[in-house]
Amino acid sequence: MTADIYTQRHNVPFFFTNKNSEMSLSSMLNFVLLVSENQLNSLHLDGESMVEKGLGWVVTQYHIDITRMPKVNEEIDISTQAKSYNKFFCYRDFWIKDLEGNELVKINSIFVLIDIKKRSMVKITPEIVQPLGSIALTGMEKFPRIKKTDFEDNKRDIHIGYYNIDINQHVNNSYYFDWALDNLDIDFLNEHSIKTVDIKYENELVYGDNPRSFVKIDEKELLTYHRIETEEKKNAELIIKWK
Amino acid sequence: MTADIYTQRHNVPFFFTNKNSEMSLSSMLNFVLLVSENQLNSLHLDGESMVEKGLGWVVTQYHIDITRMPKVNEEIDISTQAKSYNKFFCYRDFWIKDLEGNELVKINSIFVLIDIKKRSMVKITPEIVQPLGSIALTGMEKFPRIKKTDFEDNKRDIHIGYYNIDINQHVNNSYYFDWALDNLDIDFLNEHSIKTVDIKYENELVYGDNPRSFVKIDEKELLTYHRIETEEKKNAELIIKWK
Repeated sequence: MTADIYTQRHNVPFFFTNKNSEMSLSSMLNFVLLVSENQLNSLHLDGESMVEKGLGWVVTQYHIDITRMPKVNEEIDISTQAKSYNKFFCYRDFWIKDLEGNELVKINSIFVLIDIKKRSMVKITPEIVQPLGSIALTGMEKFPRIKKTDFEDNKRDIHIGYYNIDINQHVNNSYYFDWALDNLDIDFLNEHSIKTVDIKYENELVYGDNPRSFVKIDEKELLTYHRIETEEKKNAELIIKWK
Repeated sequence: MTADIYTQRHNVPFFFTNKNSEMSLSSMLNFVLLVSENQLNSLHLDGESMVEKGLGWVVTQYHIDITRMPKVNEEIDISTQAKSYNKFFCYRDFWIKDLEGNELVKINSIFVLIDIKKRSMVKITPEIVQPLGSIALTGMEKFPRIKKTDFEDNKRDIHIGYYNIDINQHVNNSYYFDWALDNLDIDFLNEHSIKTVDIKYENELVYGDNPRSFVKIDEKELLTYHRIETEEKKNAELIIKWK
């Protein structure tokens, strides 16, 4: 038995694409999350009824494999599957395919359930995830480790605007990608494309926080290491592999 | 005879809404522009064939009347009409309505046609706009004047990121709203809602520019005046009426 796969066909709108007419990383994550929200809505497990119970799903980790980014106005199929869960983690996969069925992007993610008022994790009970067909696990799914990196310099101050804050009263998770990439030279961004991304979210950011964005570039391995940090608190860490 | 009205039904996605679960101003403009792009696509007057000719539509002015902002997950009908044109300007209207037909937002806009390489305006020829049913005008449509304002202080430096640049190789027009509102106190934003917005775009912003955002608040009239400026060049000016 495997969990249900939910698919929606979408056209890539201009506002999701960047100067090269390709979908941006931040927009891609918003787009696939919309499809998982629509899956929850279709099963009446949607955000609003969760909000009434004071619960919300929060992503803590993504592993992203990119063959190529969707282009402006391209028709794509976005699929998602809430594959499995254990006591505290729900594992959800996403795929983006072109209309010939070629896989453009594959995403593995980890979600936790939080009590929105207390901002703390709560246990995942079977009735929350069973309508999705998710498989109960006793262990954990394997994700690439984000290895410890020394960031010495290349820090940039990040301004958090009113527009960065979402319905969960914190900075929307998608902005971290923009802030990480923004620390790279525009020539580097124009000449390379992303192969894989690993991101781990550790502490949320709220209005009034003053985070900084750090970067370390390994030109030989075409790896870039990124950290968003507020004073002594780590907000998120990313490793991007380029080609 | 009047120009054709093109309507699409959409659901308001979470990533278009702010902390109050209402659609943000910048997202609203992206959303209505998507509908006008879809109208052009449906008539094969779409962006790509324009790009081949080296032409692009650029908005220069919006007048926005807001009864209330659409809410997250709300079903809305977005309509648009390329109402009229003269030698250099095309006038396009947009409406957002709820499913009972109540008007939530009405937008009047002015577009110009530009030669993308030369970054200069070109004359609008009848064959470009006649498939839309646009009416030829000899004069101009009336828009509220954006009166001259003295901005003394309250300037904030704006950082232009890679993510702000769109397919036209300049800052996407929607970000100006975020930058303007970001100069207001969060308490003011929480306690007021927008009644009307007038914005006039004057000079585009490109990667590497260092604009500043100015604000002047008239608390008695509940008017806020905004300007985005780069050294001596005015990029955009806004007047917002609050309630």
